[in-house]
Amino acid sequence: MPRVFNFSAGPAVLPEDVLQEAQSTMLDYKGSGMSLLESSHRGKEYEAVHNEAIANLKKLMGLGEDYTIIFMTGGASAQFALVPLNLLGPEQTADYVNAGAWGTKAIKEAKGIGKVHIVADTTRDRPLRMPKQGEMKFTPSAAYLHLTSNETIEGTQMRVFPKTSTPMVVDASSDFLSYPVDFKQFGLIYAGAQKNMGPAGVTLVAIRKDLLAQSSESIPLIFRYKTHAAENSLYNTPPCFAIYLVMLVTRWIEKKGGLAALAKINADKAAALYAAIDGSGGYYRGSASREDRSDMNVTYRLPTEELEDKFIKEASAAGLKGLKGHRSVGGIRASIYNAFPRAGVDALVNFMKEFQQKNG
Amino acid sequence: MPRVFNFSAGPAVLPEDVLQEAQSTMLDYKGSGMSLLESSHRGKEYEAVHNEAIANLKKLMGLGEDYTIIFMTGGASAQFALVPLNLLGPEQTADYVNAGAWGTKAIKEAKGIGKVHIVADTTRDRPLRMPKQGEMKFTPSAAYLHLTSNETIEGTQMRVFPKTSTPMVVDASSDFLSYPVDFKQFGLIYAGAQKNMGPAGVTLVAIRKDLLAQSSESIPLIFRYKTHAAENSLYNTPPCFAIYLVMLVTRWIEKKGGLAALAKINADKAAALYAAIDGSGGYYRGSASREDRSDMNVTYRLPTEELEDKFIKEASAAGLKGLKGHRSVGGIRASIYNAFPRAGVDALVNFMKEFQQKNG
Repeated sequence: MPRVFNFSAGPAVLPEDVLQEAQSTMLDYKGSGMSLLESSHRGKEYEAVHNEAIANLKKLMGLGEDYTIIFMTGGASAQFALVPLNLLGPEQTADYVNAGAWGTKAIKEAKGIGKVHIVADTTRDRPLRMPKQGEMKFTPSAAYLHLTSNETIEGTQMRVFPKTSTPMVVDASSDFLSYPVDFKQFGLIYAGAQKNMGPAGVTLVAIRKDLLAQSSESIPLIFRYKTHAAENSLYNTPPCFAIYLVMLVTRWIEKKGGLAALAKINADKAAALYAAIDGSGGYYRGSASREDRSDMNVTYRLPTEELEDKFIKEASAAGLKGLKGHRSVGGIRASIYNAFPRAGVDALVNFMKEFQQKNG
Repeated sequence: MPRVFNFSAGPAVLPEDVLQEAQSTMLDYKGSGMSLLESSHRGKEYEAVHNEAIANLKKLMGLGEDYTIIFMTGGASAQFALVPLNLLGPEQTADYVNAGAWGTKAIKEAKGIGKVHIVADTTRDRPLRMPKQGEMKFTPSAAYLHLTSNETIEGTQMRVFPKTSTPMVVDASSDFLSYPVDFKQFGLIYAGAQKNMGPAGVTLVAIRKDLLAQSSESIPLIFRYKTHAAENSLYNTPPCFAIYLVMLVTRWIEKKGGLAALAKINADKAAALYAAIDGSGGYYRGSASREDRSDMNVTYRLPTEELEDKFIKEASAAGLKGLKGHRSVGGIRASIYNAFPRAGVDALVNFMKEFQQKNG
């Protein structure tokens, strides 16, 4: 079986180079006589991987000594609780933007922990969209402002962020490392690995040191950002193999020319798909507002749900996998992260044209 | 480079069969055209792996419908907080046995969450040992009694558990699935995978349904056992690849003849090492009390720290890796989990004899 085109929203396609490298070290990592799956997290082989992953991420993000990168587990869903537990004091309010399913989940968890104010809610708007800064009603001296930079399910992306003195916390899970963004505008960035950065099982947290210094010391040790920062993410056994793959992905990104080069490729891939949607005479209809369309998750509908089912089924048979949209939005979702090849986009565009000809 | 003998305490050696199988599927899992590292956790390939892992673990543990198995992340260290968060009510007391470094850590975290009573503390005893039931002063109607079945750092193992009506919670991380134990005597069993069950990055929790029913609904959703149980550990993206390896390890255990067969092999391996220690005329001295010696982690000392350093260095050069004891106990620690081959034990025994002859 050749490799298929995997449009899955996450876990998602990884670079073949990365998989091949991981495959080649599976029984013997670089002459150590053991797999990295078996290596002590205190040993020199793993230590080099761990530190290179952190250094490469910091470089790709353009962050300096005023930020600390830590690896945690539990994905964005764990951060939905850990962010307010660490950063939201009992007398404070946290501001949240709600632009989709992930924002909604973050808010639900935060509301159980502290005082939450919704600065904008676009979840009921159609087409799906991101709020603009002008719509947001900020709380003076909020503990933080929480944003979801890319709503994976809706297929909307925020690229211009509010100007505010409140520290911004961004869930960047589904567009992390897909284009150059000024990460220094955020106080905390978190991202589950399983879209652009690696496999499921590890979460990146980058936190500005002044926020880290203010973070809680009255929650369990294992939940404190301070605990993991103080021990270079080795307080407890990290998910070593997932971090190894993250390290390999960062090398792959560098080899591809860094975030600027990837951004160009990603924008071209997305543009080709949106052009196919917009050029279909209304047969395919984009689910997201044009100005907020995501370069990572392209969401669209067909004339009927029956045609959507047929489309997904026939696409899958043609080697175009994982195109079913989330049930809350319906239709089609093509996730085209960094590692998703241009050839797969072209194949989908062709498939869309043929499908419309046969079923138009 | 041939495979070395990896005595690491965890992450630890995995069965070669398992690594080879994972290697063979690295770019194409069973004709799906993608790696399991890339497969959607909602897809049929991963779903089959996930459900087989749970079913196999339940079978190996001899548990029926009155227990639920869930996969979480963060290792035992996360459970140190999650157990009291889920099971220790505000008016209740939790009983803890402290027999080593991991028990101490569990207690430290629990004390920040609720009322804790130490029923026995043997951490200052030498030789290192487990407390007996007669020494334990139980709290009437405690929420639970927490035990560490194998203290990895000390090299002590508890195989006879207290008879009590209090639900027992056992951290079985370092002897899980190494011998047949009546798991039905426990209310909750947890174990980080990275000793006997798989790679770092996934944690097993098996909980009796009556305890699950009583567990907290006032903590963040992501921390609730109920959340993960209700969603078959798919509430959020699980660490799919780590769970895949756990599934392969459970198959390997079945193929080896199950827990009874492994117990025999493990007991023989440990007996060979302890015989080498006891037969050395006092040159090697076991760190643990004879009756509490662990079959998983064999701890011992040499006449001087200088000789210990020399021993570790020369053993490593001879392909016997990871023998350095934890700094809190010192000396040598040979971790010989399920997947550690008998040939490695024999090699270490020979090395010990030769080392003593040269340095006795």
